[in-house]
Amino acid sequence: MKVDGKPWRPIWLEDDGWSVGIIDQTRLPFAFVSARLSSEAEAVQAIRAMLVRGAPLIGATAAYGMALAMRADASDANLAGAYQRLFETRPTAINLGWALDDMRRRLAPLAPGEREAAAYARAAEIVEQDVEINRRIGAHGLELIRAIADRKPGPVNILTHCNAGWLATCDWGTATAPIYQAHDAGIAVHVWVDETRPRNQGSHLTAWELHNHGVPHTVIVDNAGGHLMQRGQVDICFTGTDRTTATGDVCNKIGTYLKALAARDNGVPFYVCLPSPTIDWSLRDGVGEIPIEERSAAEVTEVTGIAPDGAVVRTRVVSPGSPAANPAFDVTPARLVTGLVTERGVAEASEAGLLGLFPERKTA
Amino acid sequence: MKVDGKPWRPIWLEDDGWSVGIIDQTRLPFAFVSARLSSEAEAVQAIRAMLVRGAPLIGATAAYGMALAMRADASDANLAGAYQRLFETRPTAINLGWALDDMRRRLAPLAPGEREAAAYARAAEIVEQDVEINRRIGAHGLELIRAIADRKPGPVNILTHCNAGWLATCDWGTATAPIYQAHDAGIAVHVWVDETRPRNQGSHLTAWELHNHGVPHTVIVDNAGGHLMQRGQVDICFTGTDRTTATGDVCNKIGTYLKALAARDNGVPFYVCLPSPTIDWSLRDGVGEIPIEERSAAEVTEVTGIAPDGAVVRTRVVSPGSPAANPAFDVTPARLVTGLVTERGVAEASEAGLLGLFPERKTA
Repeated sequence: MKVDGKPWRPIWLEDDGWSVGIIDQTRLPFAFVSARLSSEAEAVQAIRAMLVRGAPLIGATAAYGMALAMRADASDANLAGAYQRLFETRPTAINLGWALDDMRRRLAPLAPGEREAAAYARAAEIVEQDVEINRRIGAHGLELIRAIADRKPGPVNILTHCNAGWLATCDWGTATAPIYQAHDAGIAVHVWVDETRPRNQGSHLTAWELHNHGVPHTVIVDNAGGHLMQRGQVDICFTGTDRTTATGDVCNKIGTYLKALAARDNGVPFYVCLPSPTIDWSLRDGVGEIPIEERSAAEVTEVTGIAPDGAVVRTRVVSPGSPAANPAFDVTPARLVTGLVTERGVAEASEAGLLGLFPERKTA
Repeated sequence: MKVDGKPWRPIWLEDDGWSVGIIDQTRLPFAFVSARLSSEAEAVQAIRAMLVRGAPLIGATAAYGMALAMRADASDANLAGAYQRLFETRPTAINLGWALDDMRRRLAPLAPGEREAAAYARAAEIVEQDVEINRRIGAHGLELIRAIADRKPGPVNILTHCNAGWLATCDWGTATAPIYQAHDAGIAVHVWVDETRPRNQGSHLTAWELHNHGVPHTVIVDNAGGHLMQRGQVDICFTGTDRTTATGDVCNKIGTYLKALAARDNGVPFYVCLPSPTIDWSLRDGVGEIPIEERSAAEVTEVTGIAPDGAVVRTRVVSPGSPAANPAFDVTPARLVTGLVTERGVAEASEAGLLGLFPERKTA
């Protein structure tokens, strides 16, 4: 996607052919700064300090971290050590373990002298695979937007929650992929961007992405979406998901459930975009089975913003003395989800719908 | 209600018998400061600059503003002038016009020499009437809380949105009146306080009130309430309202509708507390007929907080370059409201329910 008119990805191989460039996402949206990773230790630090975030991007960064480790020391001991150090950065990120397992399985059988080149090649493939999955999600979602554009005048109004954008992936994003593809195809779209308290990934990251790519959008507080749907100002919703059950229940950023309820109450289609690896085929009851991470209360009581003097500061926005709670995700039951947009197409949010697209998951 | 263990109201007559004390609500929650109004001009400024806010409290301040005006100059010309100057402070506040009309109607027939004493007496009555209405709302709502406490162990978990608290009225508040009365009656309660973006009246004012009165509470982002209801962590919801139709549709702070949807989806009772003067008997379709105020985008893009050095600062929290929209209220259809808690009792949210409590509103 574009920043200041030039194409960018959130991770890339530098011109030197070995060091790795990333966008420092901790500085967004108040500064656009890239960083250069020239060692495994710097990759570890970039993941741990959240210079990169989003499961697919974390996986890609870890893969390149393994390549940087092999460049410095391709021994068996360092292969095992790098795996462990990278794995411990964000133990709950699903793609992190997947990417590291994949790298180790491919590198371990090779002679040390072959490992560096193989690691860089595989890291590049992991990036391109993610880009291709998201591109396909976007192509399927684009048709949903096009169908609306074909039957109404004016821009298609899309609501999204949190940042399932290109900054969280290797390109396109998941929930944003249909939006970017529609925009690039010349379909007039306008995006309502939920602020997404407490971490403000909507007003900080999704708004930044859309602004830089030139997609018309408006930031709203999380409270506003229901009202806009009631007044006919939302044509379709797209969100991402961290985990989807085999029955189509969707675990995503806190507040997603409220928007799905409002969409249902107002007849607005509500789609969830997901790469199929985020489907947890072992789960059948999202509300009952998915544990919800309780994060630091400081994320609720404090916000990061830019002061009139240009300084980026963190201020307390809750009455001193009052405690806060911070459940980070919620579960949207499948009955509220119009469809699941995957790299293979759009499925009904149900076991039958998912198995229709992924028949290899059928058990005897 | 109490602050630091001592009873306070948001407005009072000072010991000198003529000047008027208020809590400067623009300084809350980061500083607790009172102000003394010694002239009509100071009352005008207090309303305009929102040192006082909340429809009932604005009405009471305006009434005392008329008294201060009569103390300085009880002529017909100043009666008319004070009315006009006070009326223009916040033209959309319903109680402001009501209180000023009431004062003028009573004062105009009197000789100038009688007006000052009559104005102070009537202003005090207006305050006490509001306190009594809210006390009765609280007594009726208390029974709803008591019924839950009687059938489950542990505290009754109550969710509220925005600040329909004592700071917005002359005492008790509306949505908070049942909570304070339950707490004072020894019933264990715990309140989930919605932050209430964009103006943060929940995390700034409701949290401050509850903390100071000693009511257990936890601040949450507006996104979290649906998840808590899904997990059985909310027993009952109480909100206020700015305007209720004759058919029971409720216009209240943006986001109320989303909480009502979640309450319905999870079988949680959702009650709206209102003094009967906020019922607009001329309206039958809240979504169709109530215009929604669009407020400044700066309320969305900027927040007020306290920096680590103790300075109260306003920072931008939206990506620079991105626009924002700020619809300030939404409408919750009557079908989602379990009941309307008024000074006369609890009514079903319907025309029949309201007319049952207010039979004098029946037309032939």
